[in-house]
Amino acid sequence: MKNSILLASHDDQFTAELKAEFVSRRPEISVFLLGEEGVDQADVAACWYPQADLLTHYPHIKCLHSVAAGVDHLGQNLLNSGLPVCRIVDNHQKQGMLEYVLWGVLNRHRNFDKIRDNQTAAIWHRYPQQAASELQVSVLGLGELGKFVAQGLAEFGYQISGWSRSSKSLTNVHCYSGLEGLNTVLNRTDILINLLPLSAETQGILNQDLFNAMPAGGYLINCGRGGHLVTEDLVTALDSGQLRGALLDVFDTEPLPKTEALWQQKGVIVTPHVASDVSLSTIIDQVADNVLSFSKGDTLTNAINIDKGY
Amino acid sequence: MKNSILLASHDDQFTAELKAEFVSRRPEISVFLLGEEGVDQADVAACWYPQADLLTHYPHIKCLHSVAAGVDHLGQNLLNSGLPVCRIVDNHQKQGMLEYVLWGVLNRHRNFDKIRDNQTAAIWHRYPQQAASELQVSVLGLGELGKFVAQGLAEFGYQISGWSRSSKSLTNVHCYSGLEGLNTVLNRTDILINLLPLSAETQGILNQDLFNAMPAGGYLINCGRGGHLVTEDLVTALDSGQLRGALLDVFDTEPLPKTEALWQQKGVIVTPHVASDVSLSTIIDQVADNVLSFSKGDTLTNAINIDKGY
Repeated sequence: MKNSILLASHDDQFTAELKAEFVSRRPEISVFLLGEEGVDQADVAACWYPQADLLTHYPHIKCLHSVAAGVDHLGQNLLNSGLPVCRIVDNHQKQGMLEYVLWGVLNRHRNFDKIRDNQTAAIWHRYPQQAASELQVSVLGLGELGKFVAQGLAEFGYQISGWSRSSKSLTNVHCYSGLEGLNTVLNRTDILINLLPLSAETQGILNQDLFNAMPAGGYLINCGRGGHLVTEDLVTALDSGQLRGALLDVFDTEPLPKTEALWQQKGVIVTPHVASDVSLSTIIDQVADNVLSFSKGDTLTNAINIDKGY
Repeated sequence: MKNSILLASHDDQFTAELKAEFVSRRPEISVFLLGEEGVDQADVAACWYPQADLLTHYPHIKCLHSVAAGVDHLGQNLLNSGLPVCRIVDNHQKQGMLEYVLWGVLNRHRNFDKIRDNQTAAIWHRYPQQAASELQVSVLGLGELGKFVAQGLAEFGYQISGWSRSSKSLTNVHCYSGLEGLNTVLNRTDILINLLPLSAETQGILNQDLFNAMPAGGYLINCGRGGHLVTEDLVTALDSGQLRGALLDVFDTEPLPKTEALWQQKGVIVTPHVASDVSLSTIIDQVADNVLSFSKGDTLTNAINIDKGY
């Protein structure tokens, strides 16, 4: 049937919520969940970590659509299936990343982390307050996202340093590069935000040496990739007090396995890779438009070149 | 002894932290805690909820200094003692209020409240994401603080409505006044921020009728006064799901008594009246400068007129 879609994800709650919004916003599209009656009418699958053997069970699917900017969560099996693959392109993603990071910075700056711990024991304690301008916040990685976050935080009053492989110049951001530059930045950092790309050079960069180069009591926000972080070094630094806390959005294995000790590690906040989430309205509109295009045989928007990976 | 000060508060941890910073920033001042040896040399007391009989135990105190913008926490006994009373004046207080409120807005908008609940059960679940522009945030009270907060949130991308007794006009804020205006605002409010002054008209305004006028699942941030909120109505609204959560900074009795059920109420975050805290550096500099002035017999800065109360 034309204009029909299957929502394919390991996360049933997510697809149920997505379907409800989809039906309400774009009633011209028929939306099916996995195993739902009539699902064999759908020729487009909107995917979020779908099962690897999706096409074995749903051979009528002729087009794959990521509900995110990335497509790696589809897995090699689906990416190599020969079907067209589309992704979401959201110009508000930078804003979303700034929102996430700012919540984390404020969580440390305004002592919400300690205040919430105190609440469990009914402890009323006011911590001496620092002005934003007294806090040194550093951003590793000054690509599109890092640059936007660094300048947004600077506008909010924080002292911002930035570090990148090649030297850059940004308004209101003290920019450094190279290994010596990294140490200069770390030595004065109260809150460290990782937005580096993952490469052979940056794999494991968030390790004991790096944490020890920061003043005691530092705070880490990792929005890069799980591979940047040496988890056991983080735990050591938290347990010793070298780090006060960490807000982690990315992990070596996602979803983070239930058995992973990080879930219960004191001082760690685990979020499910949502830092620069695209908005639901954007997802629905872009997927729905592509479903209509696919039904009509028109060109798909934001189709990726599988060989290049983007 | 000249240039000496007593730190007087029920909160020993706060005064210990304040002393450490004081000594490091202004070594020319001798700083004493309650009961500490040499304390009888101090003639100025820096106060935060001090004991009512402070002057009976420390008769050498000749000047009282609040470590906050307000002086009501000194209590009538000390305010009527005839001693000069000074307060802190911090131009960054508006920024501090915006920081606090923005953390609360982001906590709801980016689902950190639900994500943190999920973490305790190791649940990895990504909620469908709204753009800031899809959220209706309303500010009750458009005085200096309310205006600043409303416009700061608007700049951050939220849809902002404001309500005040007399009608106002503000850039990027939909302004309403009067009882009819209040209902118009409430009917579309996802996140409600109270920054009203406390008066006979606004006492108990945050009640069941108001919560029910909001769409189900609303979020409350109370930075006004404890007297604005009818606590039992809040609990009812939270338990029924009419409200999703509340961030509360002010209470009828402060510190909030340990026996108060609000500490453990699901969906409530209790913070110890810190929303528009002045920064420690400002407190120390203004108190230290007044200690030096007092020792020299110079005019005190930001001394209040007790009869007028400011």
